[in-house]
Amino acid sequence: MHMVLKVAVAGATGYAGGELLRLLLSHPHVEVGALTGSSSVGARLGEVSPHLTPLADRVVEATTPDVLAGHDVVFLALPHGASAAVAEALGPDVLVVDCGADFRLVDPAAWEQFYGSPHAGTWPYGLPELPGQRDVLKGTTRVAVPGCYPTTATLALFPAVRGGLVDGHDVVVVAASGPSGAGKSLKPHLLGAELMGSASAYGVGGVHRHTPEIVQNLRAAGATAAPTLSFTPVLVPMSRGILATCTAPLADPDVTPEAAYAVYAEQLVDEPFVQLLAQGQWPQTQSVLGSNVVQLQVTVDRAAGRLVAVAALDNLTKGTAGGAVQCMNLALGLPETTGLPLVGVAP
Amino acid sequence: MHMVLKVAVAGATGYAGGELLRLLLSHPHVEVGALTGSSSVGARLGEVSPHLTPLADRVVEATTPDVLAGHDVVFLALPHGASAAVAEALGPDVLVVDCGADFRLVDPAAWEQFYGSPHAGTWPYGLPELPGQRDVLKGTTRVAVPGCYPTTATLALFPAVRGGLVDGHDVVVVAASGPSGAGKSLKPHLLGAELMGSASAYGVGGVHRHTPEIVQNLRAAGATAAPTLSFTPVLVPMSRGILATCTAPLADPDVTPEAAYAVYAEQLVDEPFVQLLAQGQWPQTQSVLGSNVVQLQVTVDRAAGRLVAVAALDNLTKGTAGGAVQCMNLALGLPETTGLPLVGVAP
Amino acid sequence: MHMVLKVAVAGATGYAGGELLRLLLSHPHVEVGALTGSSSVGARLGEVSPHLTPLADRVVEATTPDVLAGHDVVFLALPHGASAAVAEALGPDVLVVDCGADFRLVDPAAWEQFYGSPHAGTWPYGLPELPGQRDVLKGTTRVAVPGCYPTTATLALFPAVRGGLVDGHDVVVVAASGPSGAGKSLKPHLLGAELMGSASAYGVGGVHRHTPEIVQNLRAAGATAAPTLSFTPVLVPMSRGILATCTAPLADPDVTPEAAYAVYAEQLVDEPFVQLLAQGQWPQTQSVLGSNVVQLQVTVDRAAGRLVAVAALDNLTKGTAGGAVQCMNLALGLPETTGLPLVGVAP
Amino acid sequence: MHMVLKVAVAGATGYAGGELLRLLLSHPHVEVGALTGSSSVGARLGEVSPHLTPLADRVVEATTPDVLAGHDVVFLALPHGASAAVAEALGPDVLVVDCGADFRLVDPAAWEQFYGSPHAGTWPYGLPELPGQRDVLKGTTRVAVPGCYPTTATLALFPAVRGGLVDGHDVVVVAASGPSGAGKSLKPHLLGAELMGSASAYGVGGVHRHTPEIVQNLRAAGATAAPTLSFTPVLVPMSRGILATCTAPLADPDVTPEAAYAVYAEQLVDEPFVQLLAQGQWPQTQSVLGSNVVQLQVTVDRAAGRLVAVAALDNLTKGTAGGAVQCMNLALGLPETTGLPLVGVAP
Repeated sequence: MHMVLKVAVAGATGYAGGELLRLLLSHPHVEVGALTGSSSVGARLGEVSPHLTPLADRVVEATTPDVLAGHDVVFLALPHGASAAVAEALGPDVLVVDCGADFRLVDPAAWEQFYGSPHAGTWPYGLPELPGQRDVLKGTTRVAVPGCYPTTATLALFPAVRGGLVDGHDVVVVAASGPSGAGKSLKPHLLGAELMGSASAYGVGGVHRHTPEIVQNLRAAGATAAPTLSFTPVLVPMSRGILATCTAPLADPDVTPEAAYAVYAEQLVDEPFVQLLAQGQWPQTQSVLGSNVVQLQVTVDRAAGRLVAVAALDNLTKGTAGGAVQCMNLALGLPETTGLPLVGVAP
Repeated sequence: MHMVLKVAVAGATGYAGGELLRLLLSHPHVEVGALTGSSSVGARLGEVSPHLTPLADRVVEATTPDVLAGHDVVFLALPHGASAAVAEALGPDVLVVDCGADFRLVDPAAWEQFYGSPHAGTWPYGLPELPGQRDVLKGTTRVAVPGCYPTTATLALFPAVRGGLVDGHDVVVVAASGPSGAGKSLKPHLLGAELMGSASAYGVGGVHRHTPEIVQNLRAAGATAAPTLSFTPVLVPMSRGILATCTAPLADPDVTPEAAYAVYAEQLVDEPFVQLLAQGQWPQTQSVLGSNVVQLQVTVDRAAGRLVAVAALDNLTKGTAGGAVQCMNLALGLPETTGLPLVGVAP
Repeated sequence: MHMVLKVAVAGATGYAGGELLRLLLSHPHVEVGALTGSSSVGARLGEVSPHLTPLADRVVEATTPDVLAGHDVVFLALPHGASAAVAEALGPDVLVVDCGADFRLVDPAAWEQFYGSPHAGTWPYGLPELPGQRDVLKGTTRVAVPGCYPTTATLALFPAVRGGLVDGHDVVVVAASGPSGAGKSLKPHLLGAELMGSASAYGVGGVHRHTPEIVQNLRAAGATAAPTLSFTPVLVPMSRGILATCTAPLADPDVTPEAAYAVYAEQLVDEPFVQLLAQGQWPQTQSVLGSNVVQLQVTVDRAAGRLVAVAALDNLTKGTAGGAVQCMNLALGLPETTGLPLVGVAP
Repeated sequence: MHMVLKVAVAGATGYAGGELLRLLLSHPHVEVGALTGSSSVGARLGEVSPHLTPLADRVVEATTPDVLAGHDVVFLALPHGASAAVAEALGPDVLVVDCGADFRLVDPAAWEQFYGSPHAGTWPYGLPELPGQRDVLKGTTRVAVPGCYPTTATLALFPAVRGGLVDGHDVVVVAASGPSGAGKSLKPHLLGAELMGSASAYGVGGVHRHTPEIVQNLRAAGATAAPTLSFTPVLVPMSRGILATCTAPLADPDVTPEAAYAVYAEQLVDEPFVQLLAQGQWPQTQSVLGSNVVQLQVTVDRAAGRLVAVAALDNLTKGTAGGAVQCMNLALGLPETTGLPLVGVAP
């Protein structure tokens, strides 16, 4: 018997939705069902997302309960605040995987501080690599897929936190990212002429919405101190990819780079999508373009008293849609790696 | 019974070799065998090509008959002039698919004029979309994979030639390309600082080596006049991709854009990898990044008396390695599309 | 006595307006006066155009006759159709240099066919390099600055037309351009995520509005046949720059590349901003970034029977704002090169 | 009387040398003298650096004492270790401005640790913005131009150190940079195909050679604690530009963003090339492309207990050649801003 899941994507015409479809088209147990959008309802998908050639003649439908009914799995790639109502209408038995932020945070106060709206609730958090999280995700019918920066920073640092190399306080993360993480928003600073040849910081000073999510993850990873974080995202001229440079004070100032590397190797030994590179080789986003892999490297700067870990991933794949499919696999009892690419498109 | 082919890649550490491996890792009938190189013999593949994560621990071997022996298929991604000797040593029963230029041209004089060395011979030409070529490739043990520009220009124009819209004379092709087509050569003009933010023409005036190959293909497509071609390649700042703008005098000056489009649609109806976009939608290379699809559009400029066809493909996928795997499939009697991606990695 | 001109820029917050200001700030005879905009009226210029540091505290005003009154020169960088009314209000004695299209075309029928609106009239055409055009521009109070593609294609081809190498029929131009030529328009295809890593054609088949302008220029350059043109613009991932590949049938099929080069050298001997590179060296847009220079190369493809000329310029400098300042210099009797950069910002 | 300085550039064909020439060509008191190189001796400069159109016919000479003799100023843009011998041969009266690292560090032990060779000595350090440094540079005949990263990080942080906002310990700097800072080296990781679409970290863990130089500058800026620094450079896909994100623990955990901004504004009030943007506006490298300006912004992250300052500059202009010309001006008693651009080439 071959299991076939009927899968809908709400918000199919955005970047996250398009990446979900790219991956779902290669998934051996998926039949692509309804594709919904907002401004492009009625359009052929081939007009909006010409890279999805097998779906070129599919028509974009409206995001309504009727259209989304009758699916085994519904992925939501909707604007903030829209997911709760859609999920409610789908009923408790449908697996709903939300790529938006609405259900990521546990702490309502943090939600309200950073998003400025009432907290919708908390769903099982879709980062399987966090301690115990695979058990949480198994059999769930609701998943809150992490933000792209939190995925990157957490995967860079959780081996250090779990392994006792750092205690989670005074973490500094600076992450270079391409603009696809901002979606297809028509904003002047996202124009090609503005971005090409230019790097810029934004959301500086602890105000980016992914900040409390990273802090929450440091806690979940076992931080023994109250986590504090300075997080700065930097926009750079590439469509996709995040490269996060993460540093934190060393718990043991005398730890060697080799010892830190060994801790990472041990923590990551069973992770299918987190690859610790050979010692001395540093990640580049190109190597993970379109793949669900995050590549890591770690070292120790003893003069500065800090551990430095660098992670590279594709913000649309492991950072969003690939992570979402990984969670779908876990929720449904499929092998976690089913249908997910391990090879990047380089150069 | 599940057929498993043992496949070697000679020149595995270059861009074409890396792309071959990316595709072969997803091919259901392939087991990756020997990987050979030259300057990186002895290195872990993970050091040289970190995107190929499943092969990270494989070691690069020397390109020798012994290393390449015992495979069902050997792909060659070697410098010009090196393929003949390797192929000879492999024997006539092994399928040898050559991504280099050595065996592409039929006319020894053209070879000598453009390559400046003795002609090595002619192998079955690996462009299945040319008339009758699928029959030629079926069961062959030697394939000469086309150049990336000839693939693009030919796929843009063969429907026009076959369909009688143009007769093959006075063709003008200007093709924008990323630098990965030039390989990992350490040349100053291929440095990132030189390429980013800059477009430049090269090989101008009929001297680029792909010129006679495009002319040969126009003839093979059924040109009723002696083909003439002005071909100009233009380097632009993207790693991968070719966008070819191809024009030729209209056979019938009164043909409408709709009629020309209809001819293309008819000629392409059975082509699995050549996608004619909806009328009015023009190709972009992003849509075919990493996929084996070429996207086309055509129109008629009646004031200029010219047909204009534009094609976009990924120079490393459909333009080289994907085309090579497509030919392997045909040569071995597998379904032509086996293991080849139809979806691009966009944006 | 030192002449000081008070200069206003209408449309100062767009890309053309910003480039005008960059150049005017270095012009020894210019005092920057009113800066007007539309959506950003009331904003500090430093918010909108942070690269113009000396003007950071200037406030954007509305584009009204009152604001623009009292200047010696007014540059217009306005949407199509807006220039006529503004110019009328300024009176006949003020030098008005229009970077828009409204007054470029001589033929009302061509205007109506391509722009779909009534023809506003014809002003002296601001391409000093066309035969006799410096005399036309001297002392004028109205200038229609050419489009960026027409400037590039015309400068590539006028030496061939004037020198009798080609007669102007069956010209084919394919021009790669960065998106700054499209302005700050908030259109999905101009987003950075869409443009980076991608090349695409647009306005294909003789429909781009610059087509009749190039044809008009070929005639003005002395075409002995009725000019015909196939023009295809291609968007590539760089903020600025145009690289135009231009081919046309050779008048004399036996002309040598050396002879063609000599004709170009002779035609260009007195041109301050048109640089013929050493024979065999091909233009790249990087070399003219931010400069008012266009770099050219030419050769002959005898097998194809075509001359091939390639030109590189910065679409915002020589292609728009630099050309506009050059015309201002001529109109006012200043040395043509005053205040205009000859050195590109490379790499 | 108009002062004219005869100026030579040793290493004129590299990126730093080319940028020096671009700036020197606009300098009102400079006559460009000898241009020397190594691998391109005998070539026309137009072949090697086509953007320098006014110097296209100049010939590259060998870097010898004879060639460099007879100049008022000699800029050195040579490989590490080569400057001492050249400077010695020039004699003590010639102004020698060294863009290399040889004479930047005061501490021989730091030099030996990071460069692995004997310390050549220490010259007046060419960062005029450091306290008291303008006096040191006035009249000197030797200048050691800072590294591009140290310039960026120091200009971002010295107002905080001088103003007592931070004490210099536990500084974390992550700086995104284009590859032109690495020069025209023919290294695989600097190829365009590797860089475009990719971000990567290098020199991680306190091993980059600019680390001790930044620490030295924090001390010179008045750090009240022993400075410690975690520095990570990140290569991103743009030819030019550095964007440095710099954080350090707040001396006063209750300081407001407004108060921190006010300290910066006060410290920078007389700096001609350091521009503090309007509060809330963050730097982008595009705005300073080709200009000698560094743009800054600062805020306070009270949850993290850290000040965050971000600086953008052009690594070849203010980061190297522009800083060098600024020092030349100071050394010779010219106004510091003479000949240096204040306007960036954007977009």
